[in-house]
Order: sequence, then structure tokens, then C-alpha cells
Amino acid sequence: MKVRVTVSLKEGVLDPQGKAIGHALHVLGFDEVGEVRVGKVIELDLADEDAAKAEARARAMAEQLLANQVIEDFAVEVVK
Amino acid sequence: MKVRVTVSLKEGVLDPQGKAIGHALHVLGFDEVGEVRVGKVIELDLADEDAAKAEARARAMAEQLLANQVIEDFAVEVVK
Repeated sequence: MKVRVTVSLKEGVLDPQGKAIGHALHVLGFDEVGEVRVGKVIELDLADEDAAKAEARARAMAEQLLANQVIEDFAVEVVK
Repeated sequence: MKVRVTVSLKEGVLDPQGKAIGHALHVLGFDEVGEVRVGKVIELDLADEDAAKAEARARAMAEQLLANQVIEDFAVEVVK
């Protein structure tokens, strides 16, 4: 079972990497770019056959390791 | 218009960050974890009102800056 965990900075947390990308896009002429936010996507191959169980386990992994919940939110999605 | 660009390593390209996460998850007792791959997700606020144009522009940004197409693939998705 393939599960995707998306980790993104919470609203209001400064994102210097996003700011740098936004600046670089402006320099390249992409003037329509406003705010840019950068996150991580972690794709996990799990041995679980059951989608609900795989999602619950991935959620536990995100809470314990993948996301720093002080500054980050995460979303879990079963891909297949 | 909000556009999400997901950048991931091509198949066959070594992903040491993914390997490290997989190892850490095993140490934490998540034995069902197989391969782990880590990518980036870049959320862009674009001034374009037209979804097709926003997607085309985001694709150009990915080709010119956001993805290194030698080792990375990207996907563009209009969120709203």
C-alpha cells in the first residue's frame, strides 16, 4: 500500500525557502507570482493491505517523526 | 489562482533522505515500512485568473527553476 504524507509549514510560520524561490521567479520574469510556500512530500511503501490501517499507521509515523507539529501541519493520503 | 508543483526524484536516483527516514521508522517500530522517497511540494499563489494559463506558467517555472530535470520529475496541479 502506497501512502503519501505531505508536510507543510503552518500558516504564519516564516518560510525563507519559499521567499527565496519567489524572489528567483521574479528575477526570471514570472511577475504574477505572489506567496510561495515549500513543503515536503514523503511517499511510503507499507506492507499493510488495508487502506484504513495503512492511513492510521502513516498518521502515527507523521506524529512521531515526519512532522514537527509545533511549526508544521501534515496530511495523509492513501495512493493505492 | 493557487498551483501546486510536486517535485520528486526520478526512479533509480538514490534518495539518502528517504533511506534515513525509512531507517528511523524501523527503529521506532514501524516494521511494515518498505521504500521511502522524499520530494518537495511548492505552492504558488499566481495572479492569473485562468486555470489553463496558470498551469502552463507553473510548468515553465518548474522547467526553468523548481525542478532539476536531470534527476527530478515534476507534476503541476491547479488547486483553486
